[in-house]
Amino acid sequence: MNTYINPPRERWAELCRRAEQNNDLIRERVEEILSRVERERDAALYALAEQIDGVKLSSLRVSSEEFAEAERKISEDLKQAIEQAISNIDAFHRAQLPAEVVVETMPQVRCVQRAVPIQRVGLYIPGGTAPLFSTVLMLAVPARVAGCRRVVLCTPTNKQGKVAAEVLYAASRAGVEEVYKVGGAQAVAAMAFGTESVPKVDKIFGPGNRYVTLAKQQVATRSTAIDMPAGPSEVMVMADGSAEPSFVAADMLSQAEHGLDSQAMLVCCSAEFALKVEAELERQMAQLSRKEYLAESLLNSRIVVFESKENMIEFANEYAAEHLIISMEEAWAVADQIVAAGSVFVGNYSPESAGDYASGTNHTLPTSAWARSYGGVNVDSFMRKMTLQQLTQESLARLSPTIITMAQAEGLEAHAAAVSIRIHP
Amino acid sequence: MNTYINPPRERWAELCRRAEQNNDLIRERVEEILSRVERERDAALYALAEQIDGVKLSSLRVSSEEFAEAERKISEDLKQAIEQAISNIDAFHRAQLPAEVVVETMPQVRCVQRAVPIQRVGLYIPGGTAPLFSTVLMLAVPARVAGCRRVVLCTPTNKQGKVAAEVLYAASRAGVEEVYKVGGAQAVAAMAFGTESVPKVDKIFGPGNRYVTLAKQQVATRSTAIDMPAGPSEVMVMADGSAEPSFVAADMLSQAEHGLDSQAMLVCCSAEFALKVEAELERQMAQLSRKEYLAESLLNSRIVVFESKENMIEFANEYAAEHLIISMEEAWAVADQIVAAGSVFVGNYSPESAGDYASGTNHTLPTSAWARSYGGVNVDSFMRKMTLQQLTQESLARLSPTIITMAQAEGLEAHAAAVSIRIHP
Repeated sequence: MNTYINPPRERWAELCRRAEQNNDLIRERVEEILSRVERERDAALYALAEQIDGVKLSSLRVSSEEFAEAERKISEDLKQAIEQAISNIDAFHRAQLPAEVVVETMPQVRCVQRAVPIQRVGLYIPGGTAPLFSTVLMLAVPARVAGCRRVVLCTPTNKQGKVAAEVLYAASRAGVEEVYKVGGAQAVAAMAFGTESVPKVDKIFGPGNRYVTLAKQQVATRSTAIDMPAGPSEVMVMADGSAEPSFVAADMLSQAEHGLDSQAMLVCCSAEFALKVEAELERQMAQLSRKEYLAESLLNSRIVVFESKENMIEFANEYAAEHLIISMEEAWAVADQIVAAGSVFVGNYSPESAGDYASGTNHTLPTSAWARSYGGVNVDSFMRKMTLQQLTQESLARLSPTIITMAQAEGLEAHAAAVSIRIHP
Repeated sequence: MNTYINPPRERWAELCRRAEQNNDLIRERVEEILSRVERERDAALYALAEQIDGVKLSSLRVSSEEFAEAERKISEDLKQAIEQAISNIDAFHRAQLPAEVVVETMPQVRCVQRAVPIQRVGLYIPGGTAPLFSTVLMLAVPARVAGCRRVVLCTPTNKQGKVAAEVLYAASRAGVEEVYKVGGAQAVAAMAFGTESVPKVDKIFGPGNRYVTLAKQQVATRSTAIDMPAGPSEVMVMADGSAEPSFVAADMLSQAEHGLDSQAMLVCCSAEFALKVEAELERQMAQLSRKEYLAESLLNSRIVVFESKENMIEFANEYAAEHLIISMEEAWAVADQIVAAGSVFVGNYSPESAGDYASGTNHTLPTSAWARSYGGVNVDSFMRKMTLQQLTQESLARLSPTIITMAQAEGLEAHAAAVSIRIHP
């Protein structure tokens, strides 16, 4: 693995670089899918399922029989695990519900900020051999906590036209009753424009391949909000002498198994420690079944050594990791200086997997340095802040010189008149 | 004005339609500007100022002499008005600062949600004969309240290379020291990519023409977050028998003067009331200096009459107005049923102009029905929510069956291993 010792600041941007994604080649195809679904609606969804996924569907919505069948397939162990995860995710997200803010900025000038649930939200869950049902929980539980009126979920099926049992069971436990058998860019189109079967939603959440990501970007400029820009997953581990090289290596490998474009970065305080982690990576990789895959994925990884703790922290803020593990002495004091990261794992016993599944924090997080401006999915993501205000004739009169002077200076005479007419009727 | 009496639900979507904006023709030009600024940096900004705005600049940054000169030009009345507006905006936004959320979801599983200021933000203020310095306050005050480390402002100059005195004075009072003489799509590019003079920022805020809007959309898919999608301004007035037709007309006219693509909608409970408002519109328009402009702007307006209060409310939620004025009996009870609007003005003495300038609420709000999914600019817009978590060896062991069962069900064996290695070292 490439190791960089005390790299000068001019090189940081390059060391923080993620794998580039070139979407130009698929852009036209995604546009085609979007406009076809907008035009032909359900007919397009059936046709695309056959063309792209090779499956002939008889209906788009998952039936109650299918939900019941899914439940029968889930082991008791997994059911218990899902209940525990839901309980923790629910507790942490419920605590995030914002209180109404009420301020009299001046006597009888009452200003209110109120969080209102977004009415209709759409969740996208990718398919695949081992579908990520944990993401169902990470999206559906906060939607329920926020109080969204209608929550729909789209996900592709297998060749037999079935949705993964784990996904259906998790959806049902998290309160989602409307699941549609639609995958890819066409799922995003269906939720953005609405079809005969799939309702139009106000905001779309969830991960996906480059088709899904590009489709989300496209509809976000037209009509439908999205959770955040998406890219390959990543972790940064900050480690000093108090860290355990075997734990660090295990966290890097768990990141590497997410995908060949995943990135695991280690920022540590000595070349010696870096060597220990490399040795552990080799040792642990040999025990895992997908060793070639992991070895290839680790090609994106880098080790950066800084002698100064300040540089470690500044570099971490520059990188703005999706997941940031701080295995350092006084780890909370270090965490207090982190201004850009999705989710932070403090100390030696807080692996990324804990937050991926069950600690209670959300695992839908900003990647590709978007953590400089975006937070991860949280209760706010499913609500909007609306303001309200009320003045009385008296308080409007008191504020009128301010409003009228400013409106006149901006050349907006009717704005001034709307005040005058109320105080000099 | 077109009036619709009890329109059936099938017609609502059409009655909620805003003016369409076709950006296809300018898309290529905006792309050219973006890539030129990315490539040539300051040189491109100087050249584009000359080509597009016809001004030869000697430097891009506003000097302290220019700030001082601007201050001398501002009347005492306007200075006082600006102080009052800042005081109210500051008070309301400061009350929005979110508290840290700390939850033990299970014993020794500590989850924290912390709001962190976005480090570098860029504000864009359009130019024109009467520049909207109130928007400077609406963006810069919350940025300061949130604690953003670096706040830069870009705005075009007049032909003499000067920024409007009101804009500079408002910026300075709201704590913005870095103002750059850059307008249009090139300003968005400069703040998104950075140049020798203009720093790269993490998030860009502010209104603008279609070039600016399109440039913001473009950079939002690449590297830099934006406040929200932007479109022409709009107001909806909900009025019953308790409303005052002259106030309603004044509010509609104040919306109409924003631009020829602005929309003023009236939803009321009788055709009789609608006629009174129309008569008031004629009467008041005749007294204003821009009557032809206002008459043309009002062509986008509609009056919708519903006999039932429930329909009025449902229609308002369907329209999802940027500004919603509720001039009705029990106006707060009506407001409690509003789920989609930017800012709500309750009662007969709360004109939109109050919120536009000085009540304390923000006037940067979602238009074009984006209020179904977006809130207006608020303190959250300048912060990101980061989560942190800490487990102990004991609590990780307790949670390990959950994590390991779920990781295995998702086929992620290294995720499971990162837990096992910590509890069975």
